[in-house]
Amino acid sequence: MKKYCFGIDVGGTTIKCGLFTVEGVLLEKWEIKTRTKDNGANVLPDIAATVLAKMGEKGIEADSVSGIGIGVPGPVNENGCLPYAVNLHWGFKDIEGELGEMTGLSVKAANDANIAALGEMWKGGGAGSRNMILVTLGTGVGGGIIIDGKILPGYHGAAGEIGHAFVAPKIKDPCNCGNCGCLEQVASATGIARLAKEELENSDEDSLLRGKPDLDAKKVFDAVKEGDALAIRVAEEFGGYLGTALSIFAEVTDPQVIVIGGGVSKAGPIILDYIAKNYRKHAFPALRETDFELAILGNDAGIYGGAKMVADL
Amino acid sequence: MKKYCFGIDVGGTTIKCGLFTVEGVLLEKWEIKTRTKDNGANVLPDIAATVLAKMGEKGIEADSVSGIGIGVPGPVNENGCLPYAVNLHWGFKDIEGELGEMTGLSVKAANDANIAALGEMWKGGGAGSRNMILVTLGTGVGGGIIIDGKILPGYHGAAGEIGHAFVAPKIKDPCNCGNCGCLEQVASATGIARLAKEELENSDEDSLLRGKPDLDAKKVFDAVKEGDALAIRVAEEFGGYLGTALSIFAEVTDPQVIVIGGGVSKAGPIILDYIAKNYRKHAFPALRETDFELAILGNDAGIYGGAKMVADL
Repeated sequence: MKKYCFGIDVGGTTIKCGLFTVEGVLLEKWEIKTRTKDNGANVLPDIAATVLAKMGEKGIEADSVSGIGIGVPGPVNENGCLPYAVNLHWGFKDIEGELGEMTGLSVKAANDANIAALGEMWKGGGAGSRNMILVTLGTGVGGGIIIDGKILPGYHGAAGEIGHAFVAPKIKDPCNCGNCGCLEQVASATGIARLAKEELENSDEDSLLRGKPDLDAKKVFDAVKEGDALAIRVAEEFGGYLGTALSIFAEVTDPQVIVIGGGVSKAGPIILDYIAKNYRKHAFPALRETDFELAILGNDAGIYGGAKMVADL
Repeated sequence: MKKYCFGIDVGGTTIKCGLFTVEGVLLEKWEIKTRTKDNGANVLPDIAATVLAKMGEKGIEADSVSGIGIGVPGPVNENGCLPYAVNLHWGFKDIEGELGEMTGLSVKAANDANIAALGEMWKGGGAGSRNMILVTLGTGVGGGIIIDGKILPGYHGAAGEIGHAFVAPKIKDPCNCGNCGCLEQVASATGIARLAKEELENSDEDSLLRGKPDLDAKKVFDAVKEGDALAIRVAEEFGGYLGTALSIFAEVTDPQVIVIGGGVSKAGPIILDYIAKNYRKHAFPALRETDFELAILGNDAGIYGGAKMVADL
């Protein structure tokens, strides 16, 4: 039985690192810089160096480490290979093979949104479930699908790309993906700000949101809590898009729990009310009571999920 | 290594039975009646009797049979139990336990739409894939989700209930499930007939469909093949609803192939054109080239899938 494992979450500017027990206790976390120059040639060597240094510092022998689980911003196929990662300037990369060779440890790689989902299932908002959908409402809308306790990567490594579900025919400008009308355009932090701006432009109605610079999701939900009618309409529209989309996603995988994370979720349980109400309106009867939870691991979800990928090796 | 297995597909009026080799060769198929009286008390004993009789007839010993895989019309949980099956007048039923005891064989149970999906993955339109969505366009719209070569049952046994995705806000009369605007109401055989009737009522335009009694999906697609403009609009609307919904489903599980079955699929490859065109319009870029295939096992898909569930035991 191994005792320790590492969870690594590679972002475009920093790499989050965690040393865990295989039972999921986070012993120490730290960050290193993501050096993207030279087509990201330093990224994996830097990770290898920091992991080996941590083992040296703590006096941890290689044979007590179950492995390194790593999340990267791009689609990872079933063999742990990444065809491309725009933010890291990587082309094709055999992450598991290369990092394994550098460290002598077992390595498992997955997409970063997916390891966040696995982390929330292990020790977060989805703890106790083995079939879960995580929706991350940040600058964009990401997702991760957990089936039978494991990440569902999908045939093209694109399972859980639920932010790009076509839900809003009224949106005529393109999403980052090139399509128009994506869930991300109406349910992300920027999407909620967009809906609020539309509401403000379409009426002269008094509102706490009027004249506020830098409208964001937090300001919208703060106004909702104050009973602001216009903000409540924005929350309803957001909840309508996301709740309805989630009812469709649930008809595919029938999760035990739907976990809502990302910056927007910091508005608190009130956002679950608007999402769940609209979800239950359209969900198939057998799915109507599916549980909704807020994510609780925040930016640590990725390192938890990375650790979970290798905890049982 | 076992040599034989049985696939059983329980319907409301007949029970389809198949004797297979574990490699998936259908050696013999037959049907018995579904006796639903006495709350379906005879259903499992009748299946046990017909399986044991077939083994006797063929001189097959129990130790050369890997098991019985059975599909039933209702949600089956992870333990092979069925909370209810309206068509069979069953309440809670431990199918695997009861049928196993009656026959002395290993039994695996699943939902009938799901075993059809597994059959199509094994020897049908999805052969060669391990990650698939089957859509069955019949009187209703059913579905089955295959992940990593196995049926995804879902937490409530309701994974793949994609016929009840909310896609058509214009539909104000209730679906069989009680909701309004379900995919089933616009993409099933009856749904296509509904769309055609609407088109006929909303114009005086000449059409091959005008004045035809018993409009059905076949007549619509026959007229499409003749270049009938009104029928083509119906096909476009059908393809728009189904293709868009499939693009959303694919963003959840990222299948290698989407297989279209059921009575409507008998219209042939032309329906794939209308579905795939609309799918590709809205799919996330990485998912745009997902393969579309017609189901090929017809009514035998369920017995194939049943056999596959136990072929490797």
